[in-house]
Amino acid sequence: MAYHQEPESELEVDAFHLNSESNQMESLPSLDEVEEILGYKFENWRLLEEAFTDSSFPDKRVSYERLEHVGDSVLNLLFTKEHYFKYPDLPPGTLTRLRAANVDTEKLARVAIEHGLHRFLRDKKPLLDEQIREFSQAILDYSLHSNGLIDVPKVLADIVKSLIGAVFIDCNSSIDTVWKVFKNLLEPIISPEMLKIHPVTELYELCQKKHLKVKFVDLWRESMAFDVFIDNQLVGRGTYGLKKEIAHNRAAKDALDNLGRILGEKDSTDES
Amino acid sequence: MAYHQEPESELEVDAFHLNSESNQMESLPSLDEVEEILGYKFENWRLLEEAFTDSSFPDKRVSYERLEHVGDSVLNLLFTKEHYFKYPDLPPGTLTRLRAANVDTEKLARVAIEHGLHRFLRDKKPLLDEQIREFSQAILDYSLHSNGLIDVPKVLADIVKSLIGAVFIDCNSSIDTVWKVFKNLLEPIISPEMLKIHPVTELYELCQKKHLKVKFVDLWRESMAFDVFIDNQLVGRGTYGLKKEIAHNRAAKDALDNLGRILGEKDSTDES
Repeated sequence: MAYHQEPESELEVDAFHLNSESNQMESLPSLDEVEEILGYKFENWRLLEEAFTDSSFPDKRVSYERLEHVGDSVLNLLFTKEHYFKYPDLPPGTLTRLRAANVDTEKLARVAIEHGLHRFLRDKKPLLDEQIREFSQAILDYSLHSNGLIDVPKVLADIVKSLIGAVFIDCNSSIDTVWKVFKNLLEPIISPEMLKIHPVTELYELCQKKHLKVKFVDLWRESMAFDVFIDNQLVGRGTYGLKKEIAHNRAAKDALDNLGRILGEKDSTDES
Repeated sequence: MAYHQEPESELEVDAFHLNSESNQMESLPSLDEVEEILGYKFENWRLLEEAFTDSSFPDKRVSYERLEHVGDSVLNLLFTKEHYFKYPDLPPGTLTRLRAANVDTEKLARVAIEHGLHRFLRDKKPLLDEQIREFSQAILDYSLHSNGLIDVPKVLADIVKSLIGAVFIDCNSSIDTVWKVFKNLLEPIISPEMLKIHPVTELYELCQKKHLKVKFVDLWRESMAFDVFIDNQLVGRGTYGLKKEIAHNRAAKDALDNLGRILGEKDSTDES
């Protein structure tokens, strides 16, 4: 009886599928908890699932990427609007820098860790757990932002954006609702006073002001390092194997720290 | 009687100020007309004035730049949302390209010209009128987009964005209202089928496919031109004095046109 056999074999496949999925899911906490973190109940639960599903996950039908694309635009507008009313005298250039600081990848990745959102990510990337663990450790050394000194797993910022996108779509595109849900989660909100200069820029600006000649030597291929020479003297070094840019930033930071001491000593010698 | 003198002299100053302003404004059409173009009545008329005031205008208290900053974010979200629902199967990379095409500077500058919005601009930039006239002429040669072949006065795109920002702030941040007001004005909306490749990219892609070696020679400093050599043969040239990038794009376009003919001839010779 072909009629009966077909549904039965389909059922078998489904049971197997469910089983293999449930194995992968078993260590994942329920998404109900995300609703509690947000203080928001989803009308369309699939959006919430989609927001946490990486394309590496076996359930290939969804990926958070489209919702992240939406959330990125929503987040930009939320800060644009907030700053427009809060800082009526700020010129557009500063408004742009301020927004960039608030939607920055490390900033959002910290939000994910702070509220434990990373625990809900459905992925099959073998190295990601370790990268997230390292990032959670590394941020302890920098209270607000490392300014390019640590490596940020981009997916952490992505899931914050995709979650923002999911709420935006779920609540019929009310940006006011999205802001109410996420405003506290996005703390600390960066204010104009908190805007920091990047260490490489800061070093160049300081040296220009003090009439010092600064030179970076790229040794990254040979030894994963950058050296910084100021007036032909070695003043700083930064090493980082995974990303050249971070080695570069670390070298600038090291030079800034040492230069601060050197100039401090020089200033006090001059004064005495 | 100091009490009476002071207000009188203030009145004199005000009268003078009004007079000098009215001279500068006299050739400008009334902003009422913008409300007709938009089909939208402003609650706060100052937002409308601000949206059309360039920082070069003597009334230095306002400039459209902050509203443009807001409008830019609003416009991004409008297209992001529209595309998210309209194209449920498009991957995020294509969504990003599609949005970029719809918020592109030349695209928006064409909108300004099409609806005569440039006529309301309050500025004191001596060369701008001529640049706008040239742009209005140049777009007649390209029905939809020149793809980098003509010079675009950025201010034209800016005032479309600042006007979007002004409506957004005026209507209490309802993105649905803004979309209703601007949807028709922003026509033609670029669809995935209409996405064009930039001529430089197109030339490289075509040459790679046909196993041809392409080389650009930068002669811009000497003769405001770029030459394009394909398999060591001169195939295209582009000149443009104001912007190097446009000369580069024009060279690619010229090479594509010529290459089309050459390959067409070659193909038909091969076939015969």
